Amino acid sequence: MKAIVYCGERDVRYTDTDDPELKADTDVIMRVSTTAICGSDLHLWHGGMPTEPGFAVGHEFLGTIEEVGHSVRRFKKGDRVLASCTVGCGGCGMCRQGIYSGCSVQMPEGSVFGFGPGLPGGQAEGVRVPFADSTLFGVPESLSDEQALFLTDILPTGYMGAEFAEVSPGDTVVVFGCGPVGTFAQMSARLRGAARVIAVDLDDERLELAAKRGCDTVNPQKADLGEQVLEWTGGLGADCAIEAVGRADLITQAATLTRAGGRVAVIGVLTEPMASLPWMLFFMKNLTLRTGLVNPQNYVPKLMALIEQGRLDPTVIISHRLPLSDGPHGYEIFSEHKERALKVVMTPG
Amino acid sequence: MKAIVYCGERDVRYTDTDDPELKADTDVIMRVSTTAICGSDLHLWHGGMPTEPGFAVGHEFLGTIEEVGHSVRRFKKGDRVLASCTVGCGGCGMCRQGIYSGCSVQMPEGSVFGFGPGLPGGQAEGVRVPFADSTLFGVPESLSDEQALFLTDILPTGYMGAEFAEVSPGDTVVVFGCGPVGTFAQMSARLRGAARVIAVDLDDERLELAAKRGCDTVNPQKADLGEQVLEWTGGLGADCAIEAVGRADLITQAATLTRAGGRVAVIGVLTEPMASLPWMLFFMKNLTLRTGLVNPQNYVPKLMALIEQGRLDPTVIISHRLPLSDGPHGYEIFSEHKERALKVVMTPG
Amino acid sequence: MKAIVYCGERDVRYTDTDDPELKADTDVIMRVSTTAICGSDLHLWHGGMPTEPGFAVGHEFLGTIEEVGHSVRRFKKGDRVLASCTVGCGGCGMCRQGIYSGCSVQMPEGSVFGFGPGLPGGQAEGVRVPFADSTLFGVPESLSDEQALFLTDILPTGYMGAEFAEVSPGDTVVVFGCGPVGTFAQMSARLRGAARVIAVDLDDERLELAAKRGCDTVNPQKADLGEQVLEWTGGLGADCAIEAVGRADLITQAATLTRAGGRVAVIGVLTEPMASLPWMLFFMKNLTLRTGLVNPQNYVPKLMALIEQGRLDPTVIISHRLPLSDGPHGYEIFSEHKERALKVVMTPG
Amino acid sequence: MKAIVYCGERDVRYTDTDDPELKADTDVIMRVSTTAICGSDLHLWHGGMPTEPGFAVGHEFLGTIEEVGHSVRRFKKGDRVLASCTVGCGGCGMCRQGIYSGCSVQMPEGSVFGFGPGLPGGQAEGVRVPFADSTLFGVPESLSDEQALFLTDILPTGYMGAEFAEVSPGDTVVVFGCGPVGTFAQMSARLRGAARVIAVDLDDERLELAAKRGCDTVNPQKADLGEQVLEWTGGLGADCAIEAVGRADLITQAATLTRAGGRVAVIGVLTEPMASLPWMLFFMKNLTLRTGLVNPQNYVPKLMALIEQGRLDPTVIISHRLPLSDGPHGYEIFSEHKERALKVVMTPG
Repeated sequence: MKAIVYCGERDVRYTDTDDPELKADTDVIMRVSTTAICGSDLHLWHGGMPTEPGFAVGHEFLGTIEEVGHSVRRFKKGDRVLASCTVGCGGCGMCRQGIYSGCSVQMPEGSVFGFGPGLPGGQAEGVRVPFADSTLFGVPESLSDEQALFLTDILPTGYMGAEFAEVSPGDTVVVFGCGPVGTFAQMSARLRGAARVIAVDLDDERLELAAKRGCDTVNPQKADLGEQVLEWTGGLGADCAIEAVGRADLITQAATLTRAGGRVAVIGVLTEPMASLPWMLFFMKNLTLRTGLVNPQNYVPKLMALIEQGRLDPTVIISHRLPLSDGPHGYEIFSEHKERALKVVMTPG
Repeated sequence: MKAIVYCGERDVRYTDTDDPELKADTDVIMRVSTTAICGSDLHLWHGGMPTEPGFAVGHEFLGTIEEVGHSVRRFKKGDRVLASCTVGCGGCGMCRQGIYSGCSVQMPEGSVFGFGPGLPGGQAEGVRVPFADSTLFGVPESLSDEQALFLTDILPTGYMGAEFAEVSPGDTVVVFGCGPVGTFAQMSARLRGAARVIAVDLDDERLELAAKRGCDTVNPQKADLGEQVLEWTGGLGADCAIEAVGRADLITQAATLTRAGGRVAVIGVLTEPMASLPWMLFFMKNLTLRTGLVNPQNYVPKLMALIEQGRLDPTVIISHRLPLSDGPHGYEIFSEHKERALKVVMTPG
Repeated sequence: MKAIVYCGERDVRYTDTDDPELKADTDVIMRVSTTAICGSDLHLWHGGMPTEPGFAVGHEFLGTIEEVGHSVRRFKKGDRVLASCTVGCGGCGMCRQGIYSGCSVQMPEGSVFGFGPGLPGGQAEGVRVPFADSTLFGVPESLSDEQALFLTDILPTGYMGAEFAEVSPGDTVVVFGCGPVGTFAQMSARLRGAARVIAVDLDDERLELAAKRGCDTVNPQKADLGEQVLEWTGGLGADCAIEAVGRADLITQAATLTRAGGRVAVIGVLTEPMASLPWMLFFMKNLTLRTGLVNPQNYVPKLMALIEQGRLDPTVIISHRLPLSDGPHGYEIFSEHKERALKVVMTPG
Repeated sequence: MKAIVYCGERDVRYTDTDDPELKADTDVIMRVSTTAICGSDLHLWHGGMPTEPGFAVGHEFLGTIEEVGHSVRRFKKGDRVLASCTVGCGGCGMCRQGIYSGCSVQMPEGSVFGFGPGLPGGQAEGVRVPFADSTLFGVPESLSDEQALFLTDILPTGYMGAEFAEVSPGDTVVVFGCGPVGTFAQMSARLRGAARVIAVDLDDERLELAAKRGCDTVNPQKADLGEQVLEWTGGLGADCAIEAVGRADLITQAATLTRAGGRVAVIGVLTEPMASLPWMLFFMKNLTLRTGLVNPQNYVPKLMALIEQGRLDPTVIISHRLPLSDGPHGYEIFSEHKERALKVVMTPG
């Protein structure tokens, strides 16, 4: 089959690769109808995650079931489904607590699609999905592919940011970043009842879009972010902050802008093993810090209900629709911020 | 001064009564600028709460501070303030847990304004407010009297319903009743991220208003409520239900419509000491049941922020604006559902 | 095989019944090594749950796996396991939330062992266990059968009482009943850090045992329970109460003894569909009421760790050890409170 | 009066200083009967918190009220009381949320006793206590000074560690440090139902004491801590870890030893503004990190109940009892770990 295959640093190609095959009774094979490039795919592309080349990439995809392992109980051939980007067995102690990314069974293969040869990804015509019963979710006819696609990773990630920040009704929330994840974090903060969501970015066009979605906005190159937050909160500081960029210095800014007893959530991906953090601020202000890999399984049913009821529109982030064969170009523009790329969606031939 | 004074069953009069006076160092005297009649005032009016006559009624009021006890630290003469309907000392173990209605200090006087001679109410030109530091909240200039007034009781009560029902993003919520409290419960459920709020009432005009606010609606005299809820929830039942009418049989309906592991919140006021409840349903379905007097002190800051940011508009429930001298007429129409009275607001002289 | 078979009201017999057989790929067949009679078995015995006769009863059992369905992943022949009394598929939306008793898949067969012909029980030489992967838990060698047996139902039920009552460090907790479930609720309350656990019962010998486990005790026929609780709590009332008997009037007592903002948990089984409850108390005191069927799956790992570390000894409740063939006698003495029967454990031939 | 007065780096003296005087209506003056040296006093002593000299130090003290400000409502002359180390007004938005250390009113004076001339400490014959109604707690006759003393800071700090780590029944908890705070964290973890508390220290005598209190113990200079934790947890890792020493590298160890989805609480005091933390571990394992200044006001009532009921004995940490005049010697031995000093308690005159 055809797929976007990892061939080395800054080198992905649309090419032939092995057809997916059932390896276990709990697997299914999916035919992919729509897929997308995620910001974390770029870490691989940039060479930040060394692995041997030659496998299909991508962990945001949906499609139709073509083949079903003998022990799969909840799905059958022909079902339209989306796959959680994180894979877990569903039955071990960690999975039962909702921490599929820490599944004790799945470890050897990796727990996220498309980051190594053990678990090839879904920027492809087809893909093998392990532990289908716990990894897949049916997609109702009322939802288009594009409406459902981001439930695989990036919408739950943005929502998780608002959850980790414990956003509750009446809160003032600062969100660093207006990219795809930041946008979903802002929408989620609002959905959880935030009185004021302050979107921070250096790109004025992205800030304008945030303002249209109801955010207050600050470009820290043009205004004093700290003063602005203090003014808007009567000198107290924000109730919580969400970092959706992936920079340690923004965690420090988040801690600075947050009131005593507040929460700092980090959903941007820092790639260094260690980070220098403002400890004394965390201590003096009794701040809680949370980060982590998303487990979409915990969020899909409720977020899907919100999309179905028209309360969330995830398609707002889509900037480009390409055939899968143009995937390498998609990586190029998304990585280099060319053509105002915000989110690239692709469809196999 | 002039006030609406309780004179017996179905008998309140606009008449002279004693001017309020400071009794303790922690009191203030407020001049009332706006006040409202609450559904719970009607319990008194209907004779359901026997007490000796001769005191001003009402527990929803705001205005300006005229006189300040020596130990009041947070407020001064001239401040524009609203009073929580429930009064607590703010320092005992119960108040520190946010249960001002269970304050161990305040008990002799009663803990709610306007239900007895110990703590006269605010449907009056003036009122004494005990424990001012913990009972009062400053009202910013940006809010009108009518925008802030319902923070004293009914808006926190409606919000508390959504909180007791643990409404969270994506939930389906059934709300019994489209009166003032039911309306605020519906708005609060939505604010907390409900995917679907199902408003239930027998009055089609009230249902139409609910539909305009984004609710799905059912008139159980015209449609099968149970079937409808099952259809909308794929056969599962609602995640939670809020009873905002005050009838035991609706608690049974709420339990019937709610899925296993769901929550039932009751903010309608049942006046009998005992109630017959569907125990086997609660047991087989692992339901949680919560009710209680509201403590607005816990909700005012965050709800006020939401009103200031334009995310909540409490004035939608106001149907009548009367001079205080027409208060007895206000009780009449509100109690008898005349003139489509939903909420009656009054202004002294 | 031999089993205790339900033959009608007050009539169970040790007799031959069909051998268990695999019906689905997710089943296993267990050989039972130890089993017990539970208080809820008596509801069946007393005729309170009409069903057709002729099936093995019992839902507290452990043993060894003899046969394994093709799709069972977590267990193999020869494994020593215990079965959760409640059965759920483990993969549907309800099960993923931990509400196995509300599983949408399992409903036709019933969700608790031993209450009907669809799901025969484990007071037998063998038993079929559906959805083995989510229903069974491995038992470590370090634990005896008797140490692990009550993890199947009654120990999680008692613990759930303390959880529903939200017992937290420093609390004063009233527990109604010193039977098996009440005893485990008392031990669990203490385990969660209660400062004072007040055990209430009419049987002085049971109260003496409770006192030895660190409880304060009250026999309400010999002392004024209300006065005693007020004295021990400085006039405030208990933080929470757990009803472990199954009588509506004790729920009223529980609400009376509990402070404002407190919690009332009911783990005793009331058999009537409706119950008359002290509504005005619940309302005026902002009480939370919780009840429900236990889902041991949520509690087994942590409670098992506590038994292994010697922090919980569930064997204290065992009063009788009988061969399975004496089961009918066991029902007799347990039901009639003869021979000081507190808990009857049985072993197949 | 006489007091231990800060005179510069490594220089405290027992000398005359100004008598405390009421400055506000909400103050009281206490005569101190017992006081203690806290680990955080040593940060001052070591010169780590630059301030002008000449004030009494110490923030762990109890005694009797001698003089009462006019607006104090909850206490009177002669009451035996203890003071929370952190001071807040009790009425502002932060204090109402329990974050007295972030009180918006108190900031100019400092919020902890004994760290600057604005708020002199209680290693003295007398001390001024601001906001007495929210800062003081009555001490019952049934408790000795030594039983109640550590409620002022160090016992709530240790308990807060277990709370921040969300210790719940059945957990395995690693505690770094067997000093006074670590000891109380271990006792608190057990009180909250931990199945296994693993105490880590380099001092074998302290580890022996921990073992006697029911902990498993590891001296990382003599055994491989990581291997040991994996062995005890079946390869999974601990549920949570509490750092009670104050070293950034131990936070990294804590994160290493904790399972996916676990919690890391830090109650040891790091004195640098920035700390280098193991970000990738936090991210890949979905860890929650919490730290903060203690607010004893939130913990005193419940912890006091536990001491009264004999479930907690805080006096176990006392190693030295000195007259206040020997305070400088107390600092010497506590700081230099001489004479096996674990906790030094002092009595004036």
